[in-house]
Amino acid sequence: MISVVILGAGNVATHLFKGFRKADNVSVIQWFNRSLSSISSYKNEVDITDDLSKLKDADIYILAISDDAISNLSSQLPFENKLVVHTSGSVSVYDIDMKHKRGVLYPLQTFSKEANLDFKNVPICIETIDKKSYPLLKEVALSTGSPTKKVNSDQRRVLHLAAVFVNNFTNQLYRIGHEITESEGAEFDVLKPLILETAKKIQDISPYMAQTGPAKRNDKKTLKKHLKLLDNNTQHKAIYELLTASIQQTHGRKKL
Amino acid sequence: MISVVILGAGNVATHLFKGFRKADNVSVIQWFNRSLSSISSYKNEVDITDDLSKLKDADIYILAISDDAISNLSSQLPFENKLVVHTSGSVSVYDIDMKHKRGVLYPLQTFSKEANLDFKNVPICIETIDKKSYPLLKEVALSTGSPTKKVNSDQRRVLHLAAVFVNNFTNQLYRIGHEITESEGAEFDVLKPLILETAKKIQDISPYMAQTGPAKRNDKKTLKKHLKLLDNNTQHKAIYELLTASIQQTHGRKKL
Repeated sequence: MISVVILGAGNVATHLFKGFRKADNVSVIQWFNRSLSSISSYKNEVDITDDLSKLKDADIYILAISDDAISNLSSQLPFENKLVVHTSGSVSVYDIDMKHKRGVLYPLQTFSKEANLDFKNVPICIETIDKKSYPLLKEVALSTGSPTKKVNSDQRRVLHLAAVFVNNFTNQLYRIGHEITESEGAEFDVLKPLILETAKKIQDISPYMAQTGPAKRNDKKTLKKHLKLLDNNTQHKAIYELLTASIQQTHGRKKL
Repeated sequence: MISVVILGAGNVATHLFKGFRKADNVSVIQWFNRSLSSISSYKNEVDITDDLSKLKDADIYILAISDDAISNLSSQLPFENKLVVHTSGSVSVYDIDMKHKRGVLYPLQTFSKEANLDFKNVPICIETIDKKSYPLLKEVALSTGSPTKKVNSDQRRVLHLAAVFVNNFTNQLYRIGHEITESEGAEFDVLKPLILETAKKIQDISPYMAQTGPAKRNDKKTLKKHLKLLDNNTQHKAIYELLTASIQQTHGRKKL
């Protein structure tokens, strides 16, 4: 049985705790948070504490805390030579104090606290400094039901950057779609099946192959009509122009 | 039984033909295309023709052809006062020759010829000039299993524009994600569950509520790291900056 201590009380910490509950070979023996009230509802399931000096001996300590707090908290841990990992996409593994064995468990998914998460849809990217820690981290990640992927620092960094493009930026395009449709009293809901189909399509074919539309076809009449509709919103117009140019560069068309 | 003639042989024409095959109250009595070879595989199911003078008498003529051909073909039709509709998101209903009763059946979805389409995921937007044609068009659209939505010209125009944002532009963000991950030998596949979850999330909550990430949090450290990673690609960097600014404008943050 692998013993784990979770530190932090955010979405990732909470989902990991729930994920490990179902695991046969991993046991969360303690949950630490600066403020006990955020985790007190779990006190009958697990030992909770807000006191670093009372941390139990465990195989792995998971810092599921905000990026800026990782370095500091890792130095304050009152032990050394234990495996300490963070869960961030963008923080260096070397931000963890060098007195520890260091690693990263980066779950690549969008988390909201309420929704129940199926870990089979949450790839966990694993990075370690010393090779010996890798099998243990992999076993811990797999125990939640997640697929795992071994990455190096550069790969984790670009995955986090790419995640911003396909998640945050994509969601902002949905938002702009919402604003545009509402401006004429049309319903955003009508676009929802298209949004889902666009995401489903690239599960099987590459985004390159999946591309369609006026930018790819260089359909100048439609491009012109759209730009005219966007005349009252400089920012939306700039986004239209830039992404059209990007599509045309990818597909070998001349610029707009 | 409502009789329909389909004109054109592209994705929309083909999917509509297949959709009407299952309908109880709609019968496609003829399929026209300039080139018979594109539709000849259906000749045992439906009367096919490449001769406008041989068009049969029907309740509705559906021009599922390219935007630029609509005006011309509609004038060449050798009859008048019949209901003639096109299927385009961006072409005016007035592009159809005024000798006809005119309307639009705009299916709001991304079509690829191979995939089988479930019309319950294809909202059909209906526009008519005279009110009398509306119930007939609605019945025809519903017969495929589609949800329908009555729209005016302005609403159809902005829906088409918004569709470009949530479909073509989103797909280009996936493409950029692909390029970024491959640049370090990371796998794009790891992002696929996140892409699907991002699209699923806004089926239930608004894109405004669904937003997360460094731009919304104004996490300057991460934003800076990402911009540095994009230093070798001016266009990707510009897209990152513009969409970050757009998110921050939506969520009341200062500009980058």
